[in-house]
Amino acid sequence: MSAEGFREELLSAGLLADGGLAGVYHRSFEFERVAVAVGAYVSRAGRGEASRRLYLGPVQARTTLEGSGYVTSFPNLVGVVSSFAGTESDVPAFLEELEAGVDWTDRLAPTDIALCSAGCHPIYPLVAGTTLPDAGERVEVQTWCFRHEPSPDPARMQTFRQHEFVYLGSADGAVDHRDRWLEQGRELLGALGLEVSAVVANDPFFGRTGRLLAANQRTKELKFELVAPISSATPGAISSANYHEDHFGDAFDIRTADGQAAHTACIGFGLERIALSLFLRHGLRDEAWPSEVRTRLALDVDEEVR
Amino acid sequence: MSAEGFREELLSAGLLADGGLAGVYHRSFEFERVAVAVGAYVSRAGRGEASRRLYLGPVQARTTLEGSGYVTSFPNLVGVVSSFAGTESDVPAFLEELEAGVDWTDRLAPTDIALCSAGCHPIYPLVAGTTLPDAGERVEVQTWCFRHEPSPDPARMQTFRQHEFVYLGSADGAVDHRDRWLEQGRELLGALGLEVSAVVANDPFFGRTGRLLAANQRTKELKFELVAPISSATPGAISSANYHEDHFGDAFDIRTADGQAAHTACIGFGLERIALSLFLRHGLRDEAWPSEVRTRLALDVDEEVR
Repeated sequence: MSAEGFREELLSAGLLADGGLAGVYHRSFEFERVAVAVGAYVSRAGRGEASRRLYLGPVQARTTLEGSGYVTSFPNLVGVVSSFAGTESDVPAFLEELEAGVDWTDRLAPTDIALCSAGCHPIYPLVAGTTLPDAGERVEVQTWCFRHEPSPDPARMQTFRQHEFVYLGSADGAVDHRDRWLEQGRELLGALGLEVSAVVANDPFFGRTGRLLAANQRTKELKFELVAPISSATPGAISSANYHEDHFGDAFDIRTADGQAAHTACIGFGLERIALSLFLRHGLRDEAWPSEVRTRLALDVDEEVR
Repeated sequence: MSAEGFREELLSAGLLADGGLAGVYHRSFEFERVAVAVGAYVSRAGRGEASRRLYLGPVQARTTLEGSGYVTSFPNLVGVVSSFAGTESDVPAFLEELEAGVDWTDRLAPTDIALCSAGCHPIYPLVAGTTLPDAGERVEVQTWCFRHEPSPDPARMQTFRQHEFVYLGSADGAVDHRDRWLEQGRELLGALGLEVSAVVANDPFFGRTGRLLAANQRTKELKFELVAPISSATPGAISSANYHEDHFGDAFDIRTADGQAAHTACIGFGLERIALSLFLRHGLRDEAWPSEVRTRLALDVDEEVR
């Protein structure tokens, strides 16, 4: 099965609807129920761990995109919200232009709002300029992310959700969080019948400097991905476990009790990709999935209320 | 209680977290559980009605923003996604600019992606150029919407969800759909203990032409709102029931069997606003809400899985 073939099957079965642009989809209630159930499943596994639990997005302050270094590393992927910059007196001319078919987007100007880049980024401004408790801090988030990378592969949507567990504190604590969750993530996803492997990985840093950053990330083994077939036999990342060293602690002035920049780590579970993996593995009708998988995802309980 | 006072209470109680910009918030798991439960509650009330059920967004094709007439009527509210327009060879100069603190947004160009404007808009392109069945078509959608209108009032978030029931078909069918759902919506929301009234309303059309459109909408009684206290004693819209005449049928070439442009209608329930209304009415701890309200919203069932 090719990714394009699987895409056609998903559209024919009505699990996804074509949003009219590459990588933009509407989701059926059935698809959504599975994606939401995956988020709840990993959330239950981390119950009691986080001191703060938040749903983020789909937008964030543009300053977060800048402060996190995301713009520098991934300029090609960012999304900034632009809106009409004029006042009421500009409207008549604007409407005339629209009528005449002139490109109206010239009238737009970037706002201070951006789409969320990664699950954990909006967390850091919330604790910027503070000193963390001795044990560090753990935050659970679910975030709508945006990446401007149109693709015919349904595994690469332009908007998708990440369910994340984030740690902020010491270097040892961060590595421990990353490694523990990588193992727990592998067990959780394997228990859903997925063929999961952990691999060293790198972020898709842009350009020539980016290639150096990516190589460095691999050498230091900062990023691991849990990969499985998503939309074809070729495995792709359904989860990613990252140690950021003191990158965000430094960028957002988050300190540990000893005055050092905090080290951070996160694991993110890609809800849409895991849902796709499950549909690929177990079939397009979730009612026919192995009962153990349905039970783990509490799909029957969920069906009562939704 | 003023809207600003209620905002402070919501932030102090941790139900919302400040996203760093007016009208941009993160939501606690408790707030989210209530908002999601409201969507499921209205969805159960409409069970069996819609032939198609979709979760949309948070982005849509920019052409939908144009085709729906939204840009013309509400240029001040639109959100278009801009991204880096350069290639790899532009990156060094771009990074130098960033380093030098030059406004990097000059490097952005509008993409073909927009944030969703209203719950029902992305539906119309899905049936554009088709002839509807005799009985018309009914669609249920939940959509992340964006409105660029920063405000200190938590009732006016820049991103929020609408849960909608949309009808496409005859003029009589559309009016009937709108009126039936307006009554059902009033009952559903009243049964949650909210003090709900139905009022004739108009959309916030922009500019001088906009004021004429708004007056016309009121005269023809095309738009009704269900209003209730949201963030203060002053009632605001928590639901909106609209008859669009043949505006969208004409714009997207959607026809009825007799060859006429389809008439459409929708009711939208604002999930964040209804959640806020409930917190204002019953208190900030949903565990202490009247058991009848918790039962109707299936909050206890939901707590088992989330």
